[in-house]
Amino acid sequence: MRVAIPKEITDAENRVALVPALVADLTRLGCTVLFENGAGAGACYPDELYQNVTFYSDPAKLYQDADIVLKVEAPFEEEVAQFKENTIVIGLLSGYRFPERIAALSRRNITSFAMELVPRISRAQSMDALSSQATIVGYKAVLIAANMTNRFFPMLTTAAGTIRPSEVLVIGAGVAGLQAIATAKRLGAIVKAYDIRTAAREQIESLGAKMINIDVQAEGAGGYARELTDDEKQKQQTVLLEAISRSQAIISTALIPGKPAPKIITTAMVEAMAPGSVIVDCAAIAGGNCELTQPDKTISHQGILINGPTNIPSMVAKDASNMYAKNLTNFLALLVKDGKLNIDWQDEILSQSVLTHQNEIKHQPTRNLIAGAS
Amino acid sequence: MRVAIPKEITDAENRVALVPALVADLTRLGCTVLFENGAGAGACYPDELYQNVTFYSDPAKLYQDADIVLKVEAPFEEEVAQFKENTIVIGLLSGYRFPERIAALSRRNITSFAMELVPRISRAQSMDALSSQATIVGYKAVLIAANMTNRFFPMLTTAAGTIRPSEVLVIGAGVAGLQAIATAKRLGAIVKAYDIRTAAREQIESLGAKMINIDVQAEGAGGYARELTDDEKQKQQTVLLEAISRSQAIISTALIPGKPAPKIITTAMVEAMAPGSVIVDCAAIAGGNCELTQPDKTISHQGILINGPTNIPSMVAKDASNMYAKNLTNFLALLVKDGKLNIDWQDEILSQSVLTHQNEIKHQPTRNLIAGAS
Repeated sequence: MRVAIPKEITDAENRVALVPALVADLTRLGCTVLFENGAGAGACYPDELYQNVTFYSDPAKLYQDADIVLKVEAPFEEEVAQFKENTIVIGLLSGYRFPERIAALSRRNITSFAMELVPRISRAQSMDALSSQATIVGYKAVLIAANMTNRFFPMLTTAAGTIRPSEVLVIGAGVAGLQAIATAKRLGAIVKAYDIRTAAREQIESLGAKMINIDVQAEGAGGYARELTDDEKQKQQTVLLEAISRSQAIISTALIPGKPAPKIITTAMVEAMAPGSVIVDCAAIAGGNCELTQPDKTISHQGILINGPTNIPSMVAKDASNMYAKNLTNFLALLVKDGKLNIDWQDEILSQSVLTHQNEIKHQPTRNLIAGAS
Repeated sequence: MRVAIPKEITDAENRVALVPALVADLTRLGCTVLFENGAGAGACYPDELYQNVTFYSDPAKLYQDADIVLKVEAPFEEEVAQFKENTIVIGLLSGYRFPERIAALSRRNITSFAMELVPRISRAQSMDALSSQATIVGYKAVLIAANMTNRFFPMLTTAAGTIRPSEVLVIGAGVAGLQAIATAKRLGAIVKAYDIRTAAREQIESLGAKMINIDVQAEGAGGYARELTDDEKQKQQTVLLEAISRSQAIISTALIPGKPAPKIITTAMVEAMAPGSVIVDCAAIAGGNCELTQPDKTISHQGILINGPTNIPSMVAKDASNMYAKNLTNFLALLVKDGKLNIDWQDEILSQSVLTHQNEIKHQPTRNLIAGAS
């Protein structure tokens, strides 16, 4: 099996699907590694760190020699056109965002696996790229917020008096939200968290944060929350307005599978915050949790800063790549045995994560395939 | 006594010399507060938060009515020209950087006090603006570094393996350095600190960091370090090269009174770091601790990012203003009693911090008056 790692062709993506330390893992599976020059550069892994790989300067040639392609983002149509038929492609394919690219994979009879679709069962934890990248999101979002605000996060006691700690509100206590809570606590902020899933309470409190909620059971499928009714939304708004008005920083991470992100933070709520406060909206890629969010921009509304990053893992590219590449390598071990392809379609990890196979699209793009935010 | 707070005229300065909560302190001293419209805007204190003050839209009129002017930065010559004779000016006057402004104050017979010159005695701790602003520097420098790097600071244990924590090296363990150590520890990094003053060891270790040093006694005046001999510098370089090459982030805060900042980090040391590592050089305002630092720029040298902010407190303007304004208010209480000027020149705090008086410059600009970095 020849496993190819191309350079991601969009500038907005700094991650790479294979890091130097994991080349040996692929070799151990019986794979040969084909590597495009500079593919690791965005993650600060220069070519010279990749040992025992064959370098290619021309991606077209790389794809001609490849049996399996490891990607970060979904390949563009022009990349798909260069794949051989029957190539296997594995990546964060974002079928929801890029249906035309998925259609191209299907037309070309590519077998593709979407890492976002790996089921959240315990055997697949080591392949859970959604979680590993969401961890990065939660951590980094707090750093962005702390760096944007003109306040201290921790309490500070000095000879001239005491600076009160900032209050940080985390909306959505999934993997990203929990990591955001942990990071804001580390920095010494007073942390509150909001989640409509009552099951989140224990996790939130175990991290030392206070849970605010609205006495509504809103557990949905796959660990996500379901959509709220209008009545519940009204209740939510009242509780949140009070919490938001007291916060110097908000990290919002709420996503609903297959739907645009819920608009939880209204303009009126933003206006209730003090000037200089900040919102980092990690749901920006799905339209944002805040009405005012603009993707990949920081806007100022009445002195409140709203930041909407759409690809946070790429900002922490080295460690995001370390984690993602490990997820990929573990996944690949399901497909390859002693250097030969060995796909067991009875394995639910494979049957659930396959996105295209034999000219068929296995999952309609209604399902949320957004990586990294929840 | 009419105490005036003008708007800082440089865009690079967001701080304000008086925050809303402290107006009452001045009133209690028997002062009337004159406030230029918008003076608090950069620190996110809009005019409407200032109660019991008289607003001025024209700074020239403000200065005509003022007995005392509270400033952040040294007034520009055109501002000095608007002061009445005998006005008292208090601020971070940076005589070292702006001798022409200090000369203008002297020519105009202004009595000015430089907050940087307040002696570090225990009675003056509540007026120690150098320390309060240095605290901001140390905290913020770590956030800048953590936000620039493509690595995680904390250790991260996931189902797919463990991400090692980053190693952070703090150079110079004064107030800024110690706060940087504390903040990097909070974030979960492995922290080492370098200081040539052996007295720093206890403080460094009490924060949970490891001290690296070179067995040289280099205590100098006023709690700063003295300059090293050539031999000592050689020893320093060998020890530091090893420590720097292992670090993912460096926060450097080393200043020597009255001299350019010591060039501790050579180009060769930078080149020994891994691509994607970062240096935040808090001594940039005095030329930098790193040979490659450029003031107020982030440069990339062989993939290592070097950031040289010259006014970090202004980036955290709200809390920096809270602390600085408290220092100023405490200082003012030494000068004003029951609404009347009452200067006791026997008080060492006043006699040491006076910069111009009766057409005389009391401190020659050889002394380091740099605020915020040490």
